Amino acid sequence: MNLKRFRCIKPEIRVLGIDDGAFLPRTEGTVDVVGVVYRGGYWLDGVMRTEVEIDGTDATEKIAFMIKSSPHYKQLRVVMLNGITLAGFNVVDIQWLFKEINLPVVTVTREEPNLAEIKLALENLPEHEKRWQAIENAGEISQVYTRNDEEAVCMQVAGISKSDAEKILKKTSTRSNIPEALRVAHIIASGLTQVKE
Amino acid sequence: MNLKRFRCIKPEIRVLGIDDGAFLPRTEGTVDVVGVVYRGGYWLDGVMRTEVEIDGTDATEKIAFMIKSSPHYKQLRVVMLNGITLAGFNVVDIQWLFKEINLPVVTVTREEPNLAEIKLALENLPEHEKRWQAIENAGEISQVYTRNDEEAVCMQVAGISKSDAEKILKKTSTRSNIPEALRVAHIIASGLTQVKE
Repeated sequence: MNLKRFRCIKPEIRVLGIDDGAFLPRTEGTVDVVGVVYRGGYWLDGVMRTEVEIDGTDATEKIAFMIKSSPHYKQLRVVMLNGITLAGFNVVDIQWLFKEINLPVVTVTREEPNLAEIKLALENLPEHEKRWQAIENAGEISQVYTRNDEEAVCMQVAGISKSDAEKILKKTSTRSNIPEALRVAHIIASGLTQVKE
Repeated sequence: MNLKRFRCIKPEIRVLGIDDGAFLPRTEGTVDVVGVVYRGGYWLDGVMRTEVEIDGTDATEKIAFMIKSSPHYKQLRVVMLNGITLAGFNVVDIQWLFKEINLPVVTVTREEPNLAEIKLALENLPEHEKRWQAIENAGEISQVYTRNDEEAVCMQVAGISKSDAEKILKKTSTRSNIPEALRVAHIIASGLTQVKE
């Protein structure tokens, strides 16, 4: 398997954290998605945005395009997602994304995703087999202790070894138990985007 | 004069940095304005937004309302603006803003504002006397060395002594010679807001 190897992880490694904005579940329309470039767990270096369909199937493609057309693309080393679904059940295929952008992808969530529940919900949506396949492609969910030994977060990886991903999560989770880029992407996406009606 | 006094300035003092998004000069419409809450020069704690008219006269009022209706209002200690004009020549009256929100206001710009040029431009706009008055209310422009002794920034203050304002600018300018809240407000406002046509 083709993995990006990290011989040394600089404290100021450039990472991108991605999260989606607020929306009304089970409506039609798009949701703003925000990407935040951080130097390690310290400095915000840039932002980018795209939008994806609520319960659609365009998230992987839209995120790949957002990243590749950003002036920050060449400096980025890792992409982090707050879970593999955006805007409801618009699933990001992290293996496909890794191949498309040629950067490792790590998902981080505070809670373990309930795969049985997700599978059930997908059954009511078009292309549910493709969506489920994307979820299966994300592979095993592992637990990582980022900031202390009490609260673990859940991680899935593409294009990077678990041990390298774990090191990067530990180095970049400076303010909470998730990486700063994801913590701030969440604040910006939920605070600045408007619910479209 | 009624000034807010700071006996001790904590390194994690909560400050709000405000900047406007991109727009086409001399068009009609509104511009997004973003406020970013920072703990000193270190951590992003929250965001807020409003919009103001291009070359309008609603900036002071809109910013006061944005701040007072934010859940962060009670924790804020200082408000920082990237200069006293937003969205072209929509002038913020920082003395009026200070009285309205009961928080000190500090403007910070890298370049010294060219008041003669601004006065000339204002003459073509409605309510130019009121706008000029707001500019005069902002008082003396002083130079402050925030991060090193080479590059000064320009500061105007309302509701705070110059010496307290200077201390706060020095403590919060951790990454560049302007406070993090303003550096990041600029990145977010110019990167995420869209030019409305």
